[in-house]
Amino acid sequence: MADENRLLGVAVLGVGRMGRRHALNTAFFTPRARLVAVCDPIEACLQWAEENLPASVRRQTDFQQIFDDPQVQAVVIATETSSHARLAVEALRAGKHVLLEKPISINPRDSEPVLAAAKENEVEGLKLKCMVGLSRRFDESYKEVKRQIDAGLLGTPYLIKSATNDMYDPSGFFVKFSEASGGLIVDCGIHDIDMARWLFGLTTAVTTSDCDDAPRVKRVFSTGLSVRHPELAKTNDADNAICVVEFTGGKVLDFHLSRTGLHGHDCLTEVFGSERKVIVNGNPTINRVEIRDQHGVRTESTPTYYERFREAFVTEVNEFVACCLDDTVVPVSLDDAVQAGKIADALTHAFRTGKQVLFGDDGEAIYE
Amino acid sequence: MADENRLLGVAVLGVGRMGRRHALNTAFFTPRARLVAVCDPIEACLQWAEENLPASVRRQTDFQQIFDDPQVQAVVIATETSSHARLAVEALRAGKHVLLEKPISINPRDSEPVLAAAKENEVEGLKLKCMVGLSRRFDESYKEVKRQIDAGLLGTPYLIKSATNDMYDPSGFFVKFSEASGGLIVDCGIHDIDMARWLFGLTTAVTTSDCDDAPRVKRVFSTGLSVRHPELAKTNDADNAICVVEFTGGKVLDFHLSRTGLHGHDCLTEVFGSERKVIVNGNPTINRVEIRDQHGVRTESTPTYYERFREAFVTEVNEFVACCLDDTVVPVSLDDAVQAGKIADALTHAFRTGKQVLFGDDGEAIYE
Amino acid sequence: MADENRLLGVAVLGVGRMGRRHALNTAFFTPRARLVAVCDPIEACLQWAEENLPASVRRQTDFQQIFDDPQVQAVVIATETSSHARLAVEALRAGKHVLLEKPISINPRDSEPVLAAAKENEVEGLKLKCMVGLSRRFDESYKEVKRQIDAGLLGTPYLIKSATNDMYDPSGFFVKFSEASGGLIVDCGIHDIDMARWLFGLTTAVTTSDCDDAPRVKRVFSTGLSVRHPELAKTNDADNAICVVEFTGGKVLDFHLSRTGLHGHDCLTEVFGSERKVIVNGNPTINRVEIRDQHGVRTESTPTYYERFREAFVTEVNEFVACCLDDTVVPVSLDDAVQAGKIADALTHAFRTGKQVLFGDDGEAIYE
Amino acid sequence: MADENRLLGVAVLGVGRMGRRHALNTAFFTPRARLVAVCDPIEACLQWAEENLPASVRRQTDFQQIFDDPQVQAVVIATETSSHARLAVEALRAGKHVLLEKPISINPRDSEPVLAAAKENEVEGLKLKCMVGLSRRFDESYKEVKRQIDAGLLGTPYLIKSATNDMYDPSGFFVKFSEASGGLIVDCGIHDIDMARWLFGLTTAVTTSDCDDAPRVKRVFSTGLSVRHPELAKTNDADNAICVVEFTGGKVLDFHLSRTGLHGHDCLTEVFGSERKVIVNGNPTINRVEIRDQHGVRTESTPTYYERFREAFVTEVNEFVACCLDDTVVPVSLDDAVQAGKIADALTHAFRTGKQVLFGDDGEAIYE
Repeated sequence: MADENRLLGVAVLGVGRMGRRHALNTAFFTPRARLVAVCDPIEACLQWAEENLPASVRRQTDFQQIFDDPQVQAVVIATETSSHARLAVEALRAGKHVLLEKPISINPRDSEPVLAAAKENEVEGLKLKCMVGLSRRFDESYKEVKRQIDAGLLGTPYLIKSATNDMYDPSGFFVKFSEASGGLIVDCGIHDIDMARWLFGLTTAVTTSDCDDAPRVKRVFSTGLSVRHPELAKTNDADNAICVVEFTGGKVLDFHLSRTGLHGHDCLTEVFGSERKVIVNGNPTINRVEIRDQHGVRTESTPTYYERFREAFVTEVNEFVACCLDDTVVPVSLDDAVQAGKIADALTHAFRTGKQVLFGDDGEAIYE
Repeated sequence: MADENRLLGVAVLGVGRMGRRHALNTAFFTPRARLVAVCDPIEACLQWAEENLPASVRRQTDFQQIFDDPQVQAVVIATETSSHARLAVEALRAGKHVLLEKPISINPRDSEPVLAAAKENEVEGLKLKCMVGLSRRFDESYKEVKRQIDAGLLGTPYLIKSATNDMYDPSGFFVKFSEASGGLIVDCGIHDIDMARWLFGLTTAVTTSDCDDAPRVKRVFSTGLSVRHPELAKTNDADNAICVVEFTGGKVLDFHLSRTGLHGHDCLTEVFGSERKVIVNGNPTINRVEIRDQHGVRTESTPTYYERFREAFVTEVNEFVACCLDDTVVPVSLDDAVQAGKIADALTHAFRTGKQVLFGDDGEAIYE
Repeated sequence: MADENRLLGVAVLGVGRMGRRHALNTAFFTPRARLVAVCDPIEACLQWAEENLPASVRRQTDFQQIFDDPQVQAVVIATETSSHARLAVEALRAGKHVLLEKPISINPRDSEPVLAAAKENEVEGLKLKCMVGLSRRFDESYKEVKRQIDAGLLGTPYLIKSATNDMYDPSGFFVKFSEASGGLIVDCGIHDIDMARWLFGLTTAVTTSDCDDAPRVKRVFSTGLSVRHPELAKTNDADNAICVVEFTGGKVLDFHLSRTGLHGHDCLTEVFGSERKVIVNGNPTINRVEIRDQHGVRTESTPTYYERFREAFVTEVNEFVACCLDDTVVPVSLDDAVQAGKIADALTHAFRTGKQVLFGDDGEAIYE
Repeated sequence: MADENRLLGVAVLGVGRMGRRHALNTAFFTPRARLVAVCDPIEACLQWAEENLPASVRRQTDFQQIFDDPQVQAVVIATETSSHARLAVEALRAGKHVLLEKPISINPRDSEPVLAAAKENEVEGLKLKCMVGLSRRFDESYKEVKRQIDAGLLGTPYLIKSATNDMYDPSGFFVKFSEASGGLIVDCGIHDIDMARWLFGLTTAVTTSDCDDAPRVKRVFSTGLSVRHPELAKTNDADNAICVVEFTGGKVLDFHLSRTGLHGHDCLTEVFGSERKVIVNGNPTINRVEIRDQHGVRTESTPTYYERFREAFVTEVNEFVACCLDDTVVPVSLDDAVQAGKIADALTHAFRTGKQVLFGDDGEAIYE
């Protein structure tokens, strides 16, 4: 039974895009949380909050006020990527649990202070929770695949093919966004990489230093295409990328990122096991309606990742809140996000140099 | 923006099966409502409530206490069918809004007092809301079909084929349940009938007395089969039924009810329009996972109606609460439920007598 | 091994529509047959034959010449429906095997002389083969369903739902064709009826006079709609029909015929067994290509029955030829076609009178 | 109209596996050809021919007899790979048209004499036809994709993802077969490579020496896995491979070969264009039957490539025969097969060395 006397006080930092979803989900669909405040320096964002959130939710512009607020026990950080790491460190030092939007940082090195802060700080004698919002882990379909793997139904999973294909945005938003986002692979690919490490069962093993034969990355390969935006070459970016990550132990991830989809957001995963293959989202339907008319037999697709993962975002914040209240281990560790970030970084390097990148026995990429 | 100062106080009557869903949805997923109390004469049901609902929710055994409670502004009636009509009348007389589980009554005549009570009673000068829980209306996919019809995309809808096929329950629950439920057609078919009237645009028109050529039922045909439970013949029931409802104006509903499905709950609807055909739930997948193994290329199905309509039940109670708070028209009127009940009754008669049943110009079945 | 020394000499009577397919299939894709001649009184049809068939195929206008030709051992009759029965009788009397397009006749009585001729005539001491072209029996997918039923995989089949939906032909051909064709149910429905009798295992049993409890038709119900062609009412026809056939022994066929489809020829069958349900042609794809673009995720459909059953027509003539050469039983008996015709006739009566039609213990419809 | 007086006399060399299909297709389903003879040194294979082919087909053990036979105008070479090139050269020198099973040779260099022989020899003043049996080109679905590309419906195709996944053969046939076949990539991948070159429009352009900016291969990457047969490492082979081929001009092929499929032969292709994406064989169904039972909603798959491409093999030999009789250009040129072979060879090198292989401006792989 839910203990009503103990609701987690939550503040959302940044209510521009994903932050709005988090604020709504926390306010209305997270029974064990209370949305105390939102914080955003931009007026229009606070205006949105006034129109869409309960009147009791404080609207603030100064992050420090949030960190000083004793009613706030946890923060959701959904600001722009460049401020993720700094705000996470400050929040942890202020004794707040943190749910941090991905990626932690564009450059893997910049994630290290967050790891350190998470280790050093605690609240009331308890370790603070710090979870990264790798939302795919909270999706019912991916969870079902993980359950099947853990139950041995796939035998040994050996190959994951994945595609994260966004519908083309004619406004060219992602082109302008390119540099600040770290590029296509860092911005999008981290989801595919983390998902693969999780389904391959590497999310714990690789961090165990005393286990020498735990699977680790062996090499990565990448190539990119600029189908609609040749100008992305200026920022060393692309609107499509093919990436291959080879792990020791006979496991491979082959994924395709794209900003030039036509029918909607299409996020497909195939997991090949020795005993069973499973596919997630073979058809990215938005609902259970099929149309038959002069265009054939057809379904309509989720336009963006948000419709696809709407329920996963609700589950994510609910699971995070439960971890904070019940002092349990967060399902997505900081280390998982850091490792995925390193692989994304190496893939970006491979794409930019046209050479494959090898990894050493220490799990670090060898940049020549 | 949601007005926090005005939450609707709700009580759920009957927390045996659907009532539990309603109680959970009201307590945790209906931001504008507050679950004040649940009421059930059965100890085990209240025990469930203690373990699953917030501590602040009162647990009671006497319906009258609910009706007398000033904190309760609305009730959800989810008791056994035979008490639906009586409790609805009492609640309305006590000035409570009512969300009533279907069917209102087994015999259409027994629904009339509810209609009368809904007309006669009001609270604080406002008409009380009385909505019947025909959940299919709140499902995103059916709503999308309705939107497409209203936008003219189907042209003229002329034929609806529907199937409500439950997975076989080896415990034989529905056999014992047969008599009290009014039989297969009354218990299940009311959903298909109401959905068809709604999609055909008949839910308002037929009640407009000054519109002589509004479509109305012309005749119904039905036949039943007892595939696994020949003993259903004793209660004049069946575990499968084929029903045809012919409306004036060239519209036909052909539906199939079954208790003997094998792969899950399979609730399929095809709407044929002159310009487009749409299908709802062609494959009753439980999630977005497809499996490929020695059994072929396959998906797993929703086991029961609950997994299929889980979100619809949440939407239903939220829309009902909004109607009560904002004094808007409920999307499923009592009259709709009464009309659907009359058609189900005529189909049951047709099945039992082996004869088709004609309807008169007054919209009433002609029983010879 | 195919015996080359014994090719069956075949003539095709009528090369207007289906006859052309039969002629091509016989000439090019039936290794054990030799197309000797085609016969059609219409010049344009013979012109087509000259342009499309091997030069050795004789082109004639007088059916009697075919019957007199000793090189012709079998005829395929694909003339207009009204001449089917007469030509079949003449061919049988001339000692030719017959592959006869459906239906045998519009009025079931007119089929009787064919039955008689098939019984009375033989060639060289062997009974002549007379098969009706109910092509669905020769389709690989329907054959697979039959195999699964015969292997017990469906348990007891109890319900067949079927749809034969033609794509709308704006030329209105079927309207002009209506009277000569016997109407929608006789023209199209015979396929669904025969298929159901075959899959239910009734195609042999019902003709066994000494088996009193063999399943037989109990009653039929039908209703029609004229969605695009109200003028069909003049010929007592419709462009859509819903038909229900109830057999003794707890078996029901519910089928839908339509001339107003939008995406292509859509011929769907669902067979419900106590242990398994199978669906044939849930998506009437023309090939294995799926398109994803601004219209969604989609497939293109077979435009007409011909693309859907192209291979079945080849199999049909090959199986017929093998029966003639090897003196084996034809897979579709004359009696099957006659029984299907009687049911189609009763359904047409039911549609036209608005009353269900009962059948007597003798298997004959009771027309009041 | 087919000219009966001019049938192409064909002999099939090698009737072990594919040769049997070719012999049957030529004998029974190729109206413009006459199967004159088959030739195989193995007794069991000729025994098969005696039992399955027309009696008029000569059965021989000496290839020279075929080359000397004036009734034979064309040969289909379906012997083991190691003899492909030698027999093709001899046949061409003997003035026979050649339909040659893929690959021409394991080592690309060994294909050169065939190219030379095809250029040098002719019959009756006409150039001899020499076509390689890259069967995917003759499949209706791939042809439809090609038509859509040629019609501009995909815009610019930029990425092809492909998978040729065979069902696991527990007999381990492919392990024994590994060395003689040239390994997984040469044996299977040539289909994916040729298909991609064809759909990208490179099959003609790359051979045009005076067109300096025609797209050509830039680099290839490959990695392999031995999921079920670690012993394949001994022959430097694998049972799974991931291959990436990057072309100049912004075109990429990413394909996956596997011998360890579970549900059947699964040969999937996705073609991404700037305006449309198309998928071939998203579900490798064997027919139009769907099953719904305790294993879910499911379809059965084509067990091997043969069921998948059965019609394509018939089309292939018919198109080849037409090219010979009508003196038209063969749809799959020798050069196409040679180029595909070079890419397969480079991918095999990349897999074995763990390094990507670059290609020079001359279109040749640069092996360090």
